[in-house]
Amino acid sequence: MIDDETVRQLGLRLRIDSIRAAATANSGHPTSSMSAADLMAVLMARHLRYDFDAPENPNNDHLIFSKGHASPLLYSIYLAAGAITEEEFLTYRKFGSRLQGHPTPVLPWVDVATGSLGQGLPIGVGVALAGRDLDRLPYRTWVLCGDSEMAEGSIWEAVDHAGYLGLENLIAIIDVNRLGQRGPTMHQWDLDSYANRAQASGWHTIEIDGHDIDAIEDAYRDAEATEGRPTMIVAKTHKGSGASETDNVEGKHGQPLKDPEKAIHELGDIPPVHIQVQKPESTGIPHRFEVDPSTPRPRYEVGGDAVATRRAFGDALAALAQRRGDIVAVDGEVGNSTFLELTDQAEPERYFEMYIAEQQLMAAAVGFQVRHWTPFAATFAAFLSRAYDFVRMAVISQAKVAIMGSHAGVSIGEDGPSQMALEDLAEFRALGTSTVLYPSDPNQTAALVDAMADIPGISYMRTTRAALPTLYEPGEEFPVGGAKVLRSSAGDQVALISAGYTLHEALKAADALAEEGISARVIDLYSIKPLDLEILAAASTATGGRFVTVEDHWPEGGLGSAVVDAFADADARPRVVKLAVTHLPGSGTPDQLVNDVGIGARHIAEAARELVARGPQIPVGVGAGQD
Amino acid sequence: MIDDETVRQLGLRLRIDSIRAAATANSGHPTSSMSAADLMAVLMARHLRYDFDAPENPNNDHLIFSKGHASPLLYSIYLAAGAITEEEFLTYRKFGSRLQGHPTPVLPWVDVATGSLGQGLPIGVGVALAGRDLDRLPYRTWVLCGDSEMAEGSIWEAVDHAGYLGLENLIAIIDVNRLGQRGPTMHQWDLDSYANRAQASGWHTIEIDGHDIDAIEDAYRDAEATEGRPTMIVAKTHKGSGASETDNVEGKHGQPLKDPEKAIHELGDIPPVHIQVQKPESTGIPHRFEVDPSTPRPRYEVGGDAVATRRAFGDALAALAQRRGDIVAVDGEVGNSTFLELTDQAEPERYFEMYIAEQQLMAAAVGFQVRHWTPFAATFAAFLSRAYDFVRMAVISQAKVAIMGSHAGVSIGEDGPSQMALEDLAEFRALGTSTVLYPSDPNQTAALVDAMADIPGISYMRTTRAALPTLYEPGEEFPVGGAKVLRSSAGDQVALISAGYTLHEALKAADALAEEGISARVIDLYSIKPLDLEILAAASTATGGRFVTVEDHWPEGGLGSAVVDAFADADARPRVVKLAVTHLPGSGTPDQLVNDVGIGARHIAEAARELVARGPQIPVGVGAGQD
Repeated sequence: MIDDETVRQLGLRLRIDSIRAAATANSGHPTSSMSAADLMAVLMARHLRYDFDAPENPNNDHLIFSKGHASPLLYSIYLAAGAITEEEFLTYRKFGSRLQGHPTPVLPWVDVATGSLGQGLPIGVGVALAGRDLDRLPYRTWVLCGDSEMAEGSIWEAVDHAGYLGLENLIAIIDVNRLGQRGPTMHQWDLDSYANRAQASGWHTIEIDGHDIDAIEDAYRDAEATEGRPTMIVAKTHKGSGASETDNVEGKHGQPLKDPEKAIHELGDIPPVHIQVQKPESTGIPHRFEVDPSTPRPRYEVGGDAVATRRAFGDALAALAQRRGDIVAVDGEVGNSTFLELTDQAEPERYFEMYIAEQQLMAAAVGFQVRHWTPFAATFAAFLSRAYDFVRMAVISQAKVAIMGSHAGVSIGEDGPSQMALEDLAEFRALGTSTVLYPSDPNQTAALVDAMADIPGISYMRTTRAALPTLYEPGEEFPVGGAKVLRSSAGDQVALISAGYTLHEALKAADALAEEGISARVIDLYSIKPLDLEILAAASTATGGRFVTVEDHWPEGGLGSAVVDAFADADARPRVVKLAVTHLPGSGTPDQLVNDVGIGARHIAEAARELVARGPQIPVGVGAGQD
Repeated sequence: MIDDETVRQLGLRLRIDSIRAAATANSGHPTSSMSAADLMAVLMARHLRYDFDAPENPNNDHLIFSKGHASPLLYSIYLAAGAITEEEFLTYRKFGSRLQGHPTPVLPWVDVATGSLGQGLPIGVGVALAGRDLDRLPYRTWVLCGDSEMAEGSIWEAVDHAGYLGLENLIAIIDVNRLGQRGPTMHQWDLDSYANRAQASGWHTIEIDGHDIDAIEDAYRDAEATEGRPTMIVAKTHKGSGASETDNVEGKHGQPLKDPEKAIHELGDIPPVHIQVQKPESTGIPHRFEVDPSTPRPRYEVGGDAVATRRAFGDALAALAQRRGDIVAVDGEVGNSTFLELTDQAEPERYFEMYIAEQQLMAAAVGFQVRHWTPFAATFAAFLSRAYDFVRMAVISQAKVAIMGSHAGVSIGEDGPSQMALEDLAEFRALGTSTVLYPSDPNQTAALVDAMADIPGISYMRTTRAALPTLYEPGEEFPVGGAKVLRSSAGDQVALISAGYTLHEALKAADALAEEGISARVIDLYSIKPLDLEILAAASTATGGRFVTVEDHWPEGGLGSAVVDAFADADARPRVVKLAVTHLPGSGTPDQLVNDVGIGARHIAEAARELVARGPQIPVGVGAGQD
């Protein structure tokens, strides 16, 4: 075991390096790093089991800095471990450096991006749960939390779940340095205020002086020996510890020290300390679940019973989980509405109930994919807005998570607006490289569920509550980025473009228009992002640039905007009449509400009629594509 | 005092009416209503102080159904109180009815929309805080919570804050009926699991049998007598209580009873019970703060020091708060970054620190406006995504809340992507009648802050971290829905449209283009929603439909999409080259990052040059407006 004096020196050197990092960057959070330096020194010297040469070793412990702003400390640990060079260390926060202001998985030793507070612990719950119930390996998950972030409800969702689940492989270290960004925290050095709450949720808790090496050592040993429940080490620390300029001094958050040299001198001018972090003892391999690769995708007959896309999602996911052992379902206690319960029935060991806690729901999914499981997280689309920051950060983590939101739009009917997602397409489109799908039929839904399992990054599927007729034969292909032309003829005068519930309204509108002698092309835009530019361009050309888009969504940022955006810079730009939800809906039947907000078949037909009457909006036959 | 027998009968009748409501609607949540019927019977008969004829009486207690799905119970209370007729009662969940599936303020006695779980209690914290520290009136805030929603972190943010704030006027009633939507809750009937956590946060807690009238009575008296801390009554109840079909029976969530008549018979066929709810004893009037109406709006000189729009926001809000006594600032512990701390310095009694708890931040703001205060809630724009569901629900509540998000986009620099809002414009645009502002200059910011105080509904202002040159003279007017033309001449060949940091890049690009003999119109699109269609149409006409939009945001749903959307259905549609953030940024200087992601002056100039080279995209001089 590395001796006390070396550990003490390491604690000082981690402070010094944190100061140096911020000094070279002229920004950053050295004081938030210094408070946790001793806690991390003992951890890296004696307790962490991590092979820095093989970050993909499944037996590695996980160390998550929930207080991501303490990145100087994290990078100082990497320096001390020999994972990065002094030269790279000095690139901290510089353009092109892997050592960003807050940690991201651009670094191979970082599991997830942090920096939005309160996310590391709930993601840690996901990693620890994967360790126990999926990988079935003895690695531990260590999470360093700040005291400011203990005000985030997401932390307490994690505490509640970890306690309930009895995750003995999860150890939270709370760096109670008393000072937040602009002043004292709510509970300052009242360690009990944290420990008592965690205890009430079933945690083992230990309160210590976070600068007492022996106390830290004892706490980690105690945590490692604790069975059947997670451990929270609540450590009283000094922000900016060890330097007179900053030690427990207010107004020192998020800034380099004014006199780094003096501080480094006060810290003993400790030279670089190199630590060989211990490698995992376990050489186990992750558990693999038995599957039946021949399990077929569900099939729905055209002309059969109407099937809601949420139901088809549930059927398809259950089949996929039987076919592929990496698939994991994460529920927000609505599995009888999202039909995630079918996966619970089919593969109970790969179904996780996160109850009504959407942040923990998303965080668990992110944690599972850290360990290369393929999570599908599902709840009502409206309630995914509760986890938007977690999805935003998952994008920065380049996490692969499939998300399904059910009960989209006013077509849910009687439950009223609180349950109606009317902003989810905009929400998920506006996230970098996200994928957004909106199926209209059960066979299509099933095919897209299979596809989602292989889409990198965040993929989102919007489904409807109402049962809808089956439009496509089983076995038809639906590539991501595609669209389907459901009605088409040489003389099409207008294109009706929609997806989901309102696509079926568009089909009715096309029938009505046909009776009047108006030929309408109908496009099923099941892939909202990416879009099928070819099919759209062809439709624009054929119809003389006359488009009606229809969506059960607010007018901004959804399906219609996606179509309009696609042609923004095109040579020939169709005229697009966007039909969307015009006003705040109430309760009613789906049909009443769809008509009330202006997205029913008659509104579509009316808009199409007016557009046709105007004549072509671009010369018919002129290409509308990007050049 | 209304006698025990009447209260007991009321409890049964509230069950019966809940069953009747769901039966007539053929949907809804009668069993979740029945569990809390006795709790609400005792409350309405003896403890609630509410004048149903004068819902605006400032002395009224507040009753918030955090478990909004128990709307049958709430409406049964209104029926028993004589607030609604039997005829209206039977319109439950029908199209056009005020009695929607989940409560909304369409009803004058409902403070806020609920139905997204975990929101009523944090909003109740806001109302109670308004009562104690703003109105300074003795009304109480009663919040009925379900046990399922106790899994939401937002509930525990509220518990933490209410305990910390010592809100003795807040009483939470937890209806622990053990059963969630698809099965047992995490903690089932473990009342301690809730009470111990609340106690650890400083609450007075009382555990009772929620069907024992005497125990309920004692608990309310105890709560009313409790000083210096909030009270949580944790009540063990039976879901579907009192009817053999449903009493503590699984699988009965969210559905009408199969045999309502039998259940009503089992409940004693109690006839309608009419209760005169007691009116408030207090006749106090809300506290009013002394102000100096002559406090001037801050002024910034053109050519003076560069000023960040977040700083101007802070200056302007502090001045506004000194001028108007209804203004309240709500901080997420970043007031030294958002400059909300200037309001703290100027008007400390109207500044509220909600710490790092963005859901409680937004909920407090919603609670304040329930009592007609005008809240400004501010944090980093990126972290507003944490509260998106609260903003979504605030739209349904038709709440008036001004929201400021700072540190937008890659131009924040070194802190990296976790701190960069790149989706906030899309997020806030996609919310019904929201207003979205994005100022480019400090005088403009100050004027828009003043305007926000009078904008109904949700208004959002995006500000930048970086200091920017002052473009406008003090005193210039900036109507919401307006835009400013900063460069314009008769021969403009292209329009550069932007706001915030990148508007200044557009100005640089225009200078560079001018040197090459290309005349570019520059438009400051400070109001993203609503848009100034007139200025945009004129620019399209003048430039032959050649637009370059630039934004420090993902490409979807932001400023560029707003412009493209505005012309979707226009007779003449400009060609719009949208410049936006192309890939996940890292750390670096603002200038490095802006150029890395393709939104710098040289990218703008290049796009403009290419567009000009193409020639006009619509006939110059042809109107581009809607017809």
